[in-house]
Parts: sequence; C-alpha cells; structure tokens
Amino acid sequence: MTAPIALTLGDPAGIGPELAVAAWQALRNTGPVFFWLGDPVLLNNAVPFRLIEKPEDAEQTFSDALPVLPITCPILVTPGQPTSDNAPAVIESIERAVGFVLEGRAGGVTTNPIAKHILAASGFAYPGHTEFLAALCQTTGQEVMMLASPQLKVVPVTIHVSLRRALETLTTDRIIAVARATHSALQNDFGLVSPRLAIAGLNPHAGEEGLMGTEEQTIIGPAIAQLKNEGLCVSGPYPPDTMFSATARPKYDVAICMYHDQALIPLKTLDMAEGVNVTLGLPIIRTSPDHGTAFDIAAPVGSASRADPSSLLAALRLADFMSQHRRGNSQ
Amino acid sequence: MTAPIALTLGDPAGIGPELAVAAWQALRNTGPVFFWLGDPVLLNNAVPFRLIEKPEDAEQTFSDALPVLPITCPILVTPGQPTSDNAPAVIESIERAVGFVLEGRAGGVTTNPIAKHILAASGFAYPGHTEFLAALCQTTGQEVMMLASPQLKVVPVTIHVSLRRALETLTTDRIIAVARATHSALQNDFGLVSPRLAIAGLNPHAGEEGLMGTEEQTIIGPAIAQLKNEGLCVSGPYPPDTMFSATARPKYDVAICMYHDQALIPLKTLDMAEGVNVTLGLPIIRTSPDHGTAFDIAAPVGSASRADPSSLLAALRLADFMSQHRRGNSQ
Repeated sequence: MTAPIALTLGDPAGIGPELAVAAWQALRNTGPVFFWLGDPVLLNNAVPFRLIEKPEDAEQTFSDALPVLPITCPILVTPGQPTSDNAPAVIESIERAVGFVLEGRAGGVTTNPIAKHILAASGFAYPGHTEFLAALCQTTGQEVMMLASPQLKVVPVTIHVSLRRALETLTTDRIIAVARATHSALQNDFGLVSPRLAIAGLNPHAGEEGLMGTEEQTIIGPAIAQLKNEGLCVSGPYPPDTMFSATARPKYDVAICMYHDQALIPLKTLDMAEGVNVTLGLPIIRTSPDHGTAFDIAAPVGSASRADPSSLLAALRLADFMSQHRRGNSQ
Repeated sequence: MTAPIALTLGDPAGIGPELAVAAWQALRNTGPVFFWLGDPVLLNNAVPFRLIEKPEDAEQTFSDALPVLPITCPILVTPGQPTSDNAPAVIESIERAVGFVLEGRAGGVTTNPIAKHILAASGFAYPGHTEFLAALCQTTGQEVMMLASPQLKVVPVTIHVSLRRALETLTTDRIIAVARATHSALQNDFGLVSPRLAIAGLNPHAGEEGLMGTEEQTIIGPAIAQLKNEGLCVSGPYPPDTMFSATARPKYDVAICMYHDQALIPLKTLDMAEGVNVTLGLPIIRTSPDHGTAFDIAAPVGSASRADPSSLLAALRLADFMSQHRRGNSQ
C-alpha cells in the first residue's frame, strides 16, 4: 500500500481550494490518493467530501469523496481577499502535513501556494515554504530547489537573488553541494542508478576559453573535477544556449544551472503548465505547483473556476512517484 | 521580379560548400533564387552548376543548375582543414556580395559561416561578419543582431561579452538604440505596421519591485518610458522566465533581451535547426545560418554529407522575405 499524499491548504483566499477540488475530480478514479488539510467550509458543499481524523482513512474514501483533514480558518474567507488573520490555519496545515510525512503516515507533502507577505504580516518568520519546511525537518540550509516538467529537470544553484548577486555568490562549494544533493535525490527518489548531471556554464558559449568570462575555469570547472573524483556522472560546463535543445536534453537527467533564469527560462519556454517545484535535500518528499496564489482569479468552489490544475496534478503525481521510489529503496 | 540572394563562400574547408549544394537542391523548383559566390572546384562536378558573371543571370539558370559567381581559392581546399591562405577568397566573396546588394542587383546577402581565428591569422581586422559588413556599408556601430525562428524573434542588447560585463555595459541608451533599430527593421523588412516589442527584465521575476535587483527600475524602465514617448509599441519589463512561454509568445513580435543567453536559450530550446541570424541596422539585408563552420563534419561535395541545411534554407528564405518587403516599401 502506498501512503497518501498530504495536500496543504495554501492561502485560503487563493486558488488552492478550487485546485484541491479539481485535483480530486481528476484523480478520484486513478489516484494517486491524497487528502486535503483544509477548511471544509471552503468546499461549499460543491463536491462530496469526508472528514477524516488520520491519513490512514484517506484511501478508502478517496474514490467517493475528497478526504479532508479539517483545519479551521479563524475568519470567513473571501476568495481574492487574503488576510493574515487566517495565517494560523495556513501554517497549521503545513505543520501537520510535514508531521504526517515525518511519521511515515503520508508519502509526501504537496503544498498549495501561499502569499509570503500575508504570512509575514502575521509574524511568520520564514521567507517561504521551503525554508519553513527545512526548519520543521531540522535540516536548514540543505534544501535545493528542482523544477521538473515532463521534458526537463533543472536545479538552479543560485535562486531568488538579483543577477548581480548571483554572480557574486556563485562558488565552487555551492555547486558541489547542490550537485551532490541532486545526485542523491535522483538516486533515492527517482530510481536512477547513475543520474547524469549536465553542468551549465555561466557565460555565453560557456566563456569560449576565457574570451567571454572566466568563471567556467575558476569556479565551475573545479566543481566538475571534484564531483567526477567522487564518482558522480557529471559533465560540462556546457554553453547555456544549446544545452536545452531537443537533441541535447535526452543526454542528461538534470541540468545544474548557475542562476534562476538560466534554469527557469528553458523550463517554462517548453512547458508552462506542468512544471513542478520539488524541494530536494529534505528528509521528506515535497512538491508544489509552479504558480502562485492567483488571488486575481480565485473563485468560490462550485462557481466557474479559471484556475488550471495541471501543475498541481503534476505535483501530486510526482510526489507519489517519488514516494514509491523512496519506499522501494528503503525496503 | 525579385533580385536573387547572394550566398557567400564562407570558410571553404567548412560545411559551406556542401550546404550551398544542398540548398540549391532543396530550392531549385520553389525558390528563392540565389547565387553562390564560390569556387566551382569545390563542387566536384557533383551537381549541375553554371558560371555567371552577374547576379542578373542567376534567375534563368536556377532551376537547371546552381548559379556560381566564381571566386577562386588560392590553394587547394581540404574539407575540415582550414587555412588562412584561402582567406582572400573568403573575404572577396563577402565584399562582392555586399557590393551587389548595395547596387540593388541582389536582394540580400546570406553568409556561410567563417572561422574568425583563421581570418584573423591572415590579417583580417574584424571580429566577425557583422562588423565587417557594417564597415563595408559604412555604418559601423549601428548593427543589431536578431535571431529569428518560426516561433520566436529575439534581439539581445548585449551580446558576446561575459555575463559580468553584460551587467556592466547595459545602459538605458543602448536599450533605446537597439529597440529603435528593431522597430524600424520590423516595419521596413517584415511588413509590420506597428511591431510589438516585449522588453525583458534582467533579474528573476523582473526584480519583483526591487527585491531582487533594481536595474528594471533604474535602467530598463526609463528606456521603456522613452520608447513609449516616441510612439513605439513597447511593453515590459517582463519576468524573463515566463515571457517565452507558448501563451506569452503570441503577444509580441520580438523580445528585446538584456543578455546573450536570455535571448538564445529560449530560441534554441524551441528550435535548434531553423534559427536564423539577422543583422539589423545595416542598409543591406543580411541573414546567416545560426551555426558555425563545423570543420569536424565537413565533407567534399558529392560524398555523404552530415550537415543539416535547415538553418541555411531558413536564412535564404528569410532574406528573400525581407527583400520583398523592403522592395514593396520603397515602391
């Protein structure tokens, strides 16, 4: 038996509730089984749901009704109008989901989008989900972001900083740490015996022998040498513009990228809808859809929804896929 | 009647000769008509060809034989083994092609790839084709590189410099100049009455209100304001990772990009084979295939070729397309 995936509330005024419903409608007959840690009031009785007390109850109800592990929002939710008064419910949903996964009672957590500034206004001290999850798992600083779509997996070494700051903070050690975490995750959670990591250059044409930048020689090359010494299947540094082409992509399992847009541009150019955000380097499996709360289109459950559930569906499926591989590995 | 396109020799030891033959075989019945400024010895009698003395003779022979305006290589060519001894022929081919276009006797020039270091060894003073063409046209400093594929057109504001140097040299004035040149070219040569220019941000999420970089506010935003004042249809700065998605691309005609890989990654991720390099800002129309000399696979004409002519075909077709629009505009 597979443990169900825990789907969090996300910001209750965003598209999270309607996506949870759409995901259940799409998956009720095929799986993967998930349960939603959210407020049943938000479901508006528009779909059948069943309150559950524990993750173990999710599977038997899933084909008939959305399993809901109730988390109560302190005040009435108006779609599109977020308030930090409901932050405690948002946070509790995440905490309990992580707890179930750490206990082995859920296979992984898929997080609905949150609004950082709304949580911050309530005193929440973390810049985002990832840091909060790392803290809950007591593994702060180990987390690595991977974006995965059917066509491409990318891991940016530097993330949410200016391009200037990305150049300043790129180090050999950081590349090595990110590549190691990626290698381990692809082995443990994706079933790849010897994952192939393609390391991107930083500069046009990967610097062209130093003519257009030297970081390939001073920072990236030494990281590749060290990783090869450790037995990892790494190659590069590759010219960034050609490494994501249709002929190049099949030659590696994941691209290790030097900055946010080097990773995100090819991913979203190829596939905007089905990209999934995966946090590697945590003891738990965590995925999330690659979009935000979308307050501008959030609608009450049961009324016409403009939210596309593709990314959330992909996130739930990937969490389940990873969970099954990890389970297989630990047996 | 349309003036024929002048196709240059390129490095005779590269894939240029075999591509010229492949292009003629592909286009002989459909056009566009082109003539090759090259050495007939390289054709190895593998295909019918006819020596011509002037561009005006190309059209009548094109369906029966490749029109060749002869340029003699000083020494014997061995495919894959370039030598600067043949640089005079490479240069003469470019000079004569440009001359014919400036005289209105050819519609545009499509350049086969050259090897910069081979030309440099012969004393050639220009870093590449583009600068040489600009000098021949007496418009040095006005040239702008556009990459065009069926799905996307991109113009990088900074090009063949390190990413660090790109950040240092990005200015409001440069963005404005590049956008103006692009606007004019799309009007004159692509038949767009009011071309829509999408201006990329520099930083992740276009800086997110200054949280991840300020160049959007200090450099890019003022350029957009100025261009709007001039009546150009510009918008942005857009988050770089989402602006190349399938849903975003139809909303603009060209993306103005801040650095090489921001432009080239999405283009080559979508379409490696049919990308065309177009030089804007010159008085002549100039296109080139988006690949190099490929000395490693160059073969004698007539033997099995491993060179893909897709990009050259697209370059010839685009030069003809632009030539017809410019001709239409000037009538």
